[in-house]
Amino acid sequence: MRDFLPSDVLRRQYVIDAISTVFEQHGFEPLQTPVLELKETLLGKYGDEAEKLIFYASHPGQKEQELALRYDLTVPLARMFGMHEAQLSLPFKRYQIAPVWRAERPQRGRFRELYQCDADTIGIAGMEADSEIVSIVVLALQKLGFNDFVIKINNRKLLTGIGQFVGLSGDPLGNLYRSIDKFDKIGFEGVREELIRSGLGPDVVAQIMDLLASARGGAGYEAGAAMIGRLREVLADVPVAMEGLAELDSLLDYVAALNIPGNYLEFDPAVVRGLSYYTGPIFEAVLLSDDPEERVGSLAGGGRYDDLIGLFRKESLPTVGVSLGIERLIVLLDKRGLYPDHLGSTVVQVLVTVWDAASKRDAMRYAAELRAAGIRTELFMQDAKIGRQIGYADKRHIPVVLIAGPEELATGTLKFKRLADQYEVTVAREHMVEEARRLLNGRG
Amino acid sequence: MRDFLPSDVLRRQYVIDAISTVFEQHGFEPLQTPVLELKETLLGKYGDEAEKLIFYASHPGQKEQELALRYDLTVPLARMFGMHEAQLSLPFKRYQIAPVWRAERPQRGRFRELYQCDADTIGIAGMEADSEIVSIVVLALQKLGFNDFVIKINNRKLLTGIGQFVGLSGDPLGNLYRSIDKFDKIGFEGVREELIRSGLGPDVVAQIMDLLASARGGAGYEAGAAMIGRLREVLADVPVAMEGLAELDSLLDYVAALNIPGNYLEFDPAVVRGLSYYTGPIFEAVLLSDDPEERVGSLAGGGRYDDLIGLFRKESLPTVGVSLGIERLIVLLDKRGLYPDHLGSTVVQVLVTVWDAASKRDAMRYAAELRAAGIRTELFMQDAKIGRQIGYADKRHIPVVLIAGPEELATGTLKFKRLADQYEVTVAREHMVEEARRLLNGRG
Repeated sequence: MRDFLPSDVLRRQYVIDAISTVFEQHGFEPLQTPVLELKETLLGKYGDEAEKLIFYASHPGQKEQELALRYDLTVPLARMFGMHEAQLSLPFKRYQIAPVWRAERPQRGRFRELYQCDADTIGIAGMEADSEIVSIVVLALQKLGFNDFVIKINNRKLLTGIGQFVGLSGDPLGNLYRSIDKFDKIGFEGVREELIRSGLGPDVVAQIMDLLASARGGAGYEAGAAMIGRLREVLADVPVAMEGLAELDSLLDYVAALNIPGNYLEFDPAVVRGLSYYTGPIFEAVLLSDDPEERVGSLAGGGRYDDLIGLFRKESLPTVGVSLGIERLIVLLDKRGLYPDHLGSTVVQVLVTVWDAASKRDAMRYAAELRAAGIRTELFMQDAKIGRQIGYADKRHIPVVLIAGPEELATGTLKFKRLADQYEVTVAREHMVEEARRLLNGRG
Repeated sequence: MRDFLPSDVLRRQYVIDAISTVFEQHGFEPLQTPVLELKETLLGKYGDEAEKLIFYASHPGQKEQELALRYDLTVPLARMFGMHEAQLSLPFKRYQIAPVWRAERPQRGRFRELYQCDADTIGIAGMEADSEIVSIVVLALQKLGFNDFVIKINNRKLLTGIGQFVGLSGDPLGNLYRSIDKFDKIGFEGVREELIRSGLGPDVVAQIMDLLASARGGAGYEAGAAMIGRLREVLADVPVAMEGLAELDSLLDYVAALNIPGNYLEFDPAVVRGLSYYTGPIFEAVLLSDDPEERVGSLAGGGRYDDLIGLFRKESLPTVGVSLGIERLIVLLDKRGLYPDHLGSTVVQVLVTVWDAASKRDAMRYAAELRAAGIRTELFMQDAKIGRQIGYADKRHIPVVLIAGPEELATGTLKFKRLADQYEVTVAREHMVEEARRLLNGRG
């Protein structure tokens, strides 16, 4: 569990606001589900290992339905949709940026209370919805200052089709997924060896490896189209593979129409995504960085899961969504210093100093006027000489101080001092607000 | 527990943003503490009855420190301050708007997950800090559209002094507090009868009632000054009362310097505030409304509690704070319809319709361009005639639709329709963004 001190909150809020803006520009609406869900809502959805990490909530006095802290935002979305769909229209496009809880063993970079940041579209089977999800990820990462990333795209149907093509289904197909998922860790040879160890014949393994090799073609629309072309020839007799390729083709088409540059897109047959509930396109965003300190895992991940909503209503509805790794993004923004200069570590823009007891009421009136003009203003509230008051502003990184000493009082003026460059200016009392605005805009 | 659907979230967020703005204008910084605290942090702080309502969090697999969901934001603030004060400077002015949990029996208007909205100043003993808290409440309520309210102000030291004046201390003093607290419910006569029943002699009760009556003088600075004057004469020999009166005097002085109109202020010796931890000025904001549906209890309450921080560090620090009743405020804003017109029930500003399959990519490009210009844009993603698409926008309260049919395509134009007044305009393709902005600003 972490406390976020004000300077942390300002940085985190900057990231949350940037992403929310992109979500809302794409027409996704904010939704809030409660922290506590019924235990039965969560259990049976994540797999046994994950469910060991769910926190339960109870209180001694009463007997009642058992409660649990939400483990992610996706199952609560499905539960909420089943409960309230009479009030909603389709498609239902919502986002939610909120904490979830997992009883992980505390360690560096792992938190028991962590933020998730999800956007999902319920009710659209076509790739228009998936293409918007890809657009969201690219625009959000760009808005946060990243350009060295790529969205790796695959399709579960294609993976299933490759399995069928070489004669696999059921458990062996699951093993195939798991081995391919390790591509980034153990490499081409590693996957080949693991597949052979899993009991597949050398011919089958060679076929799979050839298919995977032919399907990796680098970033861009042309590379994607070429890959789809090659696989269509080989997999022409496997309907589920052809369906997956048609979806990829359509997705590519729509993402281009949304003006997303091709260099951010790469078809990668080794993308599997851990969760079992995906049914169609899957994607994850990765940073293209050689810096070991920047190896934080994928920046975003998502895909189509057409069956989950069906657990909470009669018939399922096609759904596609993405989760941005907001905690990882914050780590990277911190490391790269990608925050805008004006963000600072305090909300306070002006410190109004107090010269002496006699002029304190005047200082308070200045503060009230600056506040009424929308300027975030702190009044100095301890007994201290002006020098210490300015030192306090400096330590707090408050950009501007207002000083009204005997000289200023006698002449109906006020003095502003901007601490970054020690610029000072004396203005008539009635120009106070105007001058404060000018200094805060960096002009002067 | 409640789900907040998008239109709810937009209304709640409007209230939260308005209040945050006022907090930040007063130089209060955002802080976030975790939802889960150690059980031992919370226990022993709220009293036995309240602590029965605390939710505990646990997970089956591990043995470890026991956790609980926060019950308010004040004790976590004190815990956080004790832990991190080396990184903080005094005064520490923070606000937090976040949910807390109470295992109340679910009933109308009572929620187990409810938002609290607190601002507190740690480290300032003088009334400058208290006056800012009063300013915050007045400006926040004004900003939300209220003007029929009053902040009732009292001081625990004055109450204690009145008790001492008539010879009470310890338990009988506690009983006096509790009886006076019922003023609004049982009236002057009711309080008198209850005090007599509690075993106080008729002379003592008469003295108390005289004092209380002389101290109630209506709203405004003059009434306040007159009240202070009267009580100073009577209580001149009771040091703690004189201290309380001096604080009230100073508070009045500073609140006036902060330009707060006197009609929002009323000294009321019957204000007690339930919590035992208050040590100085106490206040609560109440709505001046005769409408029974608007009887939601106090809109804000707070005061000075100089001893609480001491539970989490060696020496205590003077602290004053306020909690705005954000859930009640939302009920009142809903009832009075105080939300701005532009708020609406959706974030979406423009629906881009799709004429046919052939022009879908063009529609997507328009959507991408509008989004890039910061306009919140939804692309219609189902198969439907234009009429149904416009009907969908109407049902969703999306203000503007974009239409590009064969006629528009042939002439390099686009058609916008504003649904509120059925205003239509056809513009050249390259003026799309500009026109959308014009329509959304209500001009045209």
